[in-house]
Amino acid sequence: MRSSGTTATELVARALDAARNSATGAFVELLPERAAQDAAVADRELAGGTDRGPLHGIPVAVKDNIDVAGAWTRCGTRDLGHHCAERDAAIVSRLRDAGAVVIGKTRTHELAWGMVTPGCRNPLDPARITGGSSGGSAAAVAEGVVPVALGTDTGGSIRNPAALCGVVGIKAGVGTLPTDGVAPLAPTQDAPGVLGATVSDCRVALTVLGAEPSGPPVRRVGVIRDHWARRVEPPVAAAIDDAVLRLREAGVEAVEVAVRNSDLAMAASYVIMLAESARHWWPADPDQVGPQVRDVLRLGARVADADYRRALAVRRSIIAGLDDAFGQVDALLMASSPVLASRIGDELTGCAGRMLPVQAAHASATSLASVSGVPALSVPGLPGPEGLPTGVQFLAPTTDPLLRCAELLERGRGDAENG
Amino acid sequence: MRSSGTTATELVARALDAARNSATGAFVELLPERAAQDAAVADRELAGGTDRGPLHGIPVAVKDNIDVAGAWTRCGTRDLGHHCAERDAAIVSRLRDAGAVVIGKTRTHELAWGMVTPGCRNPLDPARITGGSSGGSAAAVAEGVVPVALGTDTGGSIRNPAALCGVVGIKAGVGTLPTDGVAPLAPTQDAPGVLGATVSDCRVALTVLGAEPSGPPVRRVGVIRDHWARRVEPPVAAAIDDAVLRLREAGVEAVEVAVRNSDLAMAASYVIMLAESARHWWPADPDQVGPQVRDVLRLGARVADADYRRALAVRRSIIAGLDDAFGQVDALLMASSPVLASRIGDELTGCAGRMLPVQAAHASATSLASVSGVPALSVPGLPGPEGLPTGVQFLAPTTDPLLRCAELLERGRGDAENG
Repeated sequence: MRSSGTTATELVARALDAARNSATGAFVELLPERAAQDAAVADRELAGGTDRGPLHGIPVAVKDNIDVAGAWTRCGTRDLGHHCAERDAAIVSRLRDAGAVVIGKTRTHELAWGMVTPGCRNPLDPARITGGSSGGSAAAVAEGVVPVALGTDTGGSIRNPAALCGVVGIKAGVGTLPTDGVAPLAPTQDAPGVLGATVSDCRVALTVLGAEPSGPPVRRVGVIRDHWARRVEPPVAAAIDDAVLRLREAGVEAVEVAVRNSDLAMAASYVIMLAESARHWWPADPDQVGPQVRDVLRLGARVADADYRRALAVRRSIIAGLDDAFGQVDALLMASSPVLASRIGDELTGCAGRMLPVQAAHASATSLASVSGVPALSVPGLPGPEGLPTGVQFLAPTTDPLLRCAELLERGRGDAENG
Repeated sequence: MRSSGTTATELVARALDAARNSATGAFVELLPERAAQDAAVADRELAGGTDRGPLHGIPVAVKDNIDVAGAWTRCGTRDLGHHCAERDAAIVSRLRDAGAVVIGKTRTHELAWGMVTPGCRNPLDPARITGGSSGGSAAAVAEGVVPVALGTDTGGSIRNPAALCGVVGIKAGVGTLPTDGVAPLAPTQDAPGVLGATVSDCRVALTVLGAEPSGPPVRRVGVIRDHWARRVEPPVAAAIDDAVLRLREAGVEAVEVAVRNSDLAMAASYVIMLAESARHWWPADPDQVGPQVRDVLRLGARVADADYRRALAVRRSIIAGLDDAFGQVDALLMASSPVLASRIGDELTGCAGRMLPVQAAHASATSLASVSGVPALSVPGLPGPEGLPTGVQFLAPTTDPLLRCAELLERGRGDAENG
C-alpha cells in the first residue's frame, strides 16, 4: 500500500465497490460506514507516523459466524444464534489492532454445517459451488475483493472452499486461536483460521492472530497414500504428483506413509460433529432453522453416548497414528478435496469411478485433520480442466511447516510460469 | 431448597454472610446487590410456577478469571487482563439460565499461573495452602459458602485445590465447554470446570454447563502404578489403596496399567504452558504483574519453537498411550496430588522421601490429564492425618465415567460411616 502510493481510504472504497458488484454472493452484509471511518483513522495514523505493519489499512472480510461489534451475527440461519454483537470476536479485534479494516460479513451455512455454501457461486464458474462453509470468505478472496478473510473449520470448512476457489486456506490447530465470539459447532473440533490470496497473506494474518512462531525449514514430507487417499479424481491425483515433484525440486525428501485408522476419520468426525452440535443447538425452534439443519440436529440428539465415546476413541487412535507419522516427517501431504468444484444443485458427484454425495466427497479428505485437531492448510495445486483449481493439503504439528510447504509450491509454480 | 421450605433470598443472604465472615480469603469481590435481585427473581419465578431445576435459586461463586457481567475480571493480577465485563462468560450465563445466583468472584493466581493461591487459607488448617489456581473457589465450597463454584484447569488448577480442600473438582475435556469470556492461559490445555461439595452437585452443574450425556456403568478401572505415580506420601498411597478396595466392593474390576511416556507429562505440560501463556500475555508491563509471573512470561517468550514442537509431540505420544489404556479400562485411577496441603510460605515439601518445590509437587500428578486434554476429576479419598484430606483422581474419555467412579467412592464411604 505504502509503495503503491494509495491510501487505506481508497483501498477500502475499492473493496466495498468490488463487494457490491460481486457476482458470487460472497457477502451477506457490508459495513461501509464503519469501514470508511476505520480507513480514515488508518490513513491519519500512517500520516502521523504510526505504522501497524503489513495489515495497516488493508480491507478484510469476516465469516458470518464470527462477531463483529455493532453488526449482526447470523450464523447462516433464519434466526438460531442471531445476535447483534456487542464486541468483536477476539480474532477480529486482533486483526483490527494490526490496522485491518473489516468491510463486511461473508456467507456461510446454517451453523456452518455444510460443504456447499448455498447462495454462493464459484468465481471461476458461476454454475459451480464455492465449497463450504467458509464459501463466502473464499469467494471474496478469490474475486480479489479482499486479500484475507476469516473463516472457521470444523470438518474442512476453510480448506474445502480454499481448494474449490483456488485460494490458500489454513485452519489453526484446535485450541491455538481464541474462539471468544465465534459461534460453536463442535467445540472439540472447531478451529478458526484464514483464507488468503497468497501464502504470504496467510502468514501475515496468522502471525497477527497469534499462531505459533516460525520454525526450521521442512526437510521431509510424508505423502499419504492409503487406499482412501488414492480415491481422487485424475486432476487431483496429478496435482499431488506435481506437488511431490516440486517439493523434491526444492530439496525436500518425499516418502510414502500410511496413517493408522485414517479410514475411520470421516465417520468419527461426523459422529462427533453430530453429537456436539446437537448438544449446543438442539432443541432448535423449527422457525429458527431450515429443514436440513433441523434434521441434522435431531439426528445428533439421538447419537448414543456409547457411539460418541467410540468416536472419541477413534480420535485418540488417529492422533496416535499421526504421532508416529510426525516422528518420521515434518508434514503430511494429501488432497484437500478428492473432487473439483461440483455443479450447484448436484446431489451426487463422480469420484474415482463412484458416485458420492457432494458433502461426503468434499469432507472425506479434510476429515483426518478435522478429527485430530492438528493444523492443516490447502494451497492451490496444478490447475485442473476448465480453469477449475485443485487443492493440495498439508498437515503438520504447528502452522509454520504448513506455510513453508505451501511457500515451496507457490514459488515452484511461479518459477515454472516465469521459465 | 423447596423441601426445606427456605427461599432463594434466604439462601443467598446466608451465603453472602458466610462469605463476609469467611476466614479463608476465598472471595476478592462480593456482588450483594445483583445477587439479592437475582434471588428475588428466582423466588418470584418459583412462586409463579417456573422451576428451572436443581440450581434454581442456588448461590454459586465464580473464579476471578471468568467474566461476570458488570463485575471486574482481575485474573489475579495487578492490572494485566483487568476489565469490567460487559457480559457473562458463556459458562456463567448457562448457570444463570438454570437459575443459579452468582454471589461473588473467587481468588486466584496472577493469570491462574500457580498452585498455592496466595492470600487464600485452607479452611481445614489456616496455616496451610488451598492449592491453586482455583483455590478461592475450592475454599468457598469447602467452607460451605456455596455448594458449587466455577474454576479453570490448565495444569491441575481445579483438581489440586479440590484435593487439598476436601471437595470434588472436575475439569471437563479441553474443548468440551465454551471458553468465551474466560481469560486464556495456555489455550490448548485450558479447560473450565466445577468444584462442588458433593459429586452430585458437580453432576448437576456439569449437565447445565453442557458436558457429555450420561453413559453406561463403569466396569473396569486401571490403576496407574508407573514408578512416578508411586512417589506419593503414605496417606495418599493409603487413599489410593482404599479407593481400589471400595471400587472392588462395588463390583468394579481394578487392574494395574502403565501409560506410555506418562513420566514426560509434567515437562511437556510446563513447556506448553510457558510458550502459550507468553504468546498471549507477553510483553507484560512490569507494573501490571508481580515479579513471579513476569519471570514466567519472560521465560515463556524464550521457549524455542523446536522445544514447543517437541512438547506437542510428547502430547501426541501420551494421548496414544491413554488411547491404549482406554481400550482396556473405562477410567484410570491415580492420586490427585502426591502430597497433602503444604504450609503457607513453604517453598519445598517432602514427597516420598525427597524435598520438592511445592508447585512441582502439586502439579506432578495432575499433568497427565492436563497435557492430554482428557477430562479428569478429584474426589476426596481416605482422610489423612491432622484432619487434612487426600484426593483421588480419575481420568476418562468423557465426564460421565468420572462422576460414576466418584459416586462409588462417595457411596462406599457413606456406607462405611453408617456401618
